[in-house]
Amino acid sequence: MADRLNQVSQIVSSSTTAASDTVPPFRVCVIGSGNWGTTIAKVVSENTTLRPQLFHEQVKMWVFEEKINGENLTHIINTKHQNVKYLPNITLPDNLVADPDLIDTVHDADIIIFNIPHQFLPRLITQMKGHIKPRARAISCLKGFHIDKVKGVCLMSSYVTDNLHIACGALSGANLAPEVAKEKWSETTVAYRIPSDFQGEGKDVDHAVLKALFHRPYFHVNVVEDVAGVSVAGALKNVVALGCGFVKGLGWGDNASSAIQRVGLGEIIKFGKLYFPDSEVETYYGESAGVADLITTCAGGRNVRVASYMAKTGKSAEESEKELLNGQSAQGIITCKEVHEWLEHDGKIDEFPLFEAVYQIVYGGKNMRDLPKMIEDLEGIDQE
Amino acid sequence: MADRLNQVSQIVSSSTTAASDTVPPFRVCVIGSGNWGTTIAKVVSENTTLRPQLFHEQVKMWVFEEKINGENLTHIINTKHQNVKYLPNITLPDNLVADPDLIDTVHDADIIIFNIPHQFLPRLITQMKGHIKPRARAISCLKGFHIDKVKGVCLMSSYVTDNLHIACGALSGANLAPEVAKEKWSETTVAYRIPSDFQGEGKDVDHAVLKALFHRPYFHVNVVEDVAGVSVAGALKNVVALGCGFVKGLGWGDNASSAIQRVGLGEIIKFGKLYFPDSEVETYYGESAGVADLITTCAGGRNVRVASYMAKTGKSAEESEKELLNGQSAQGIITCKEVHEWLEHDGKIDEFPLFEAVYQIVYGGKNMRDLPKMIEDLEGIDQE
Repeated sequence: MADRLNQVSQIVSSSTTAASDTVPPFRVCVIGSGNWGTTIAKVVSENTTLRPQLFHEQVKMWVFEEKINGENLTHIINTKHQNVKYLPNITLPDNLVADPDLIDTVHDADIIIFNIPHQFLPRLITQMKGHIKPRARAISCLKGFHIDKVKGVCLMSSYVTDNLHIACGALSGANLAPEVAKEKWSETTVAYRIPSDFQGEGKDVDHAVLKALFHRPYFHVNVVEDVAGVSVAGALKNVVALGCGFVKGLGWGDNASSAIQRVGLGEIIKFGKLYFPDSEVETYYGESAGVADLITTCAGGRNVRVASYMAKTGKSAEESEKELLNGQSAQGIITCKEVHEWLEHDGKIDEFPLFEAVYQIVYGGKNMRDLPKMIEDLEGIDQE
Repeated sequence: MADRLNQVSQIVSSSTTAASDTVPPFRVCVIGSGNWGTTIAKVVSENTTLRPQLFHEQVKMWVFEEKINGENLTHIINTKHQNVKYLPNITLPDNLVADPDLIDTVHDADIIIFNIPHQFLPRLITQMKGHIKPRARAISCLKGFHIDKVKGVCLMSSYVTDNLHIACGALSGANLAPEVAKEKWSETTVAYRIPSDFQGEGKDVDHAVLKALFHRPYFHVNVVEDVAGVSVAGALKNVVALGCGFVKGLGWGDNASSAIQRVGLGEIIKFGKLYFPDSEVETYYGESAGVADLITTCAGGRNVRVASYMAKTGKSAEESEKELLNGQSAQGIITCKEVHEWLEHDGKIDEFPLFEAVYQIVYGGKNMRDLPKMIEDLEGIDQE
């Protein structure tokens, strides 16, 4: 690995004389500072320090400014090198700089990493328009879809490309943020398709550059081309995780949870192949962004915690999220609604019984104890 | 379901006049009385009571006789209707009869369900030879392989067929026994290929008969043809679960566990397609016997517990098994050895880095902390 990365650095270094606005060393920024945003910023900041020929050392992280005991969160991050609100007790590298100004964060960036609750993307994109480098490249760590009743289901990466006119890949994997932040071993998948305006090896972002940016000894990266597969799996696993949270909260045990995951993986693959026919089945069952992320999210992620809390307390999704997540989101709650609305519009609800059951439990007042029946009724299996 | 089962019962009932030694109502027996054997015996005994036209009500369960506080285990089961040693606190149906005599258990059975630690099968088969109905049918709930240096890797179901000359399918799924015993909702997969001496619908065991025998409101059965896929997944998941147990015991978290499961699923599929080319990839990622069983086994099964205990205490697999499992087995410990020996014989060790790493940790004194490196070295990924 070290050898390959050095090679890349050398190739890249030898070509920095070319006049271009995106030659290396690349400037990297991160949009978002929740626990996952801050963790990814930590990861890339460690790598930019290690590889000065490839990346500018400083990594800016856009932070939605808020006061913590009267002090600005950005100021706390930049002086104490901790995100005390969203990632407490994790020391951040000195070269990671919190910035409350979105335009200042992005205007000179060559690589823009999006890592925010996906419903905030459209507003931020609107603000960014006209203020980014034309040949910037982006990676979306967002989990969700943009639903357009005309265009259909859009990936967040496509939304970035359509609105900012820059190439955008995706990063997703079995990555519960607190564990990655503590540098426990995990894997992830980065998906990126080389764009038509690619400037050539050593002059532009490619798979080797992305591996150099994200791979750490504790965070093992596989780079693939299947942006759609990685994104669909990343978005829909949160819906499945709500289903697992219900059965866990009801005390139904591991067999029931894994049954929900099995049905969920099947619906993820079906949804992916239906709306993104180019996505590969192997991505869903073979990549960290696929089956592994599903498993880890259904074991211990936010969506499981919220749904389990709903089961135990009878409280709504909204209340549960508020009480448990300290201002962060359980994306499955929004995603299951988006998916429902799209499938209803497209006349395909019956083909996705688990997704629909989760939606009906969260928004339609259905009893979560009927989950097995709801799944199987729609699947056409008679009940005994 | 009820309708379909009634239909089957009627068809079957109308043909019972035919002179044959295996016409319905079928006699069912279970070989084995560990927690999973006893649980499956409970499941089928509930169904034989419900469907007298299809099955004899009494189900015999062969029990390896042992004394519990001076009393025979079979006597306790038959009077208290509890398997106090292996499945305490679960009431068994009255029509389930424990029998310490193997020949008495099997001699008149039309359907023989094997549910024992797989290393005991050859000895039992030897005893059974010549004492079973020639047209009996069998279902193997065994998890493991029979390795023959000439024939290669044999499924337990093939071992039954080769030695007893009766058709044999397989049952496997996301079925932690204590949860199924408590009637918590789960799914399973039954695989059965109709044999060439099939006596015809209504006169022989087919998919509908197997569904009628195993399906319960809390135990949802899918019947498929892919015996090899179901068996391979059921055997190898125990090896993967040992890997998960190591990383759990080391405190590495859910991301690491799901990474092991992802790599494991890939090796299961590769092994399956290499040695059983007819097995279907969809079985591995789409059936309860595939991905779902992998998940539930890696969440809370015996193999995880044993491996986690090894990680925490530094004790050997053998010691850990003895201290934790009350006389039962963690099949992964045997299976990883069988798999290693076969892959070594076949020159394919390098293609299965996780299986080999687990073997080396259990038997070769390798440090489990090197598991990520061992997996990736063999995969050809350079280390940083």
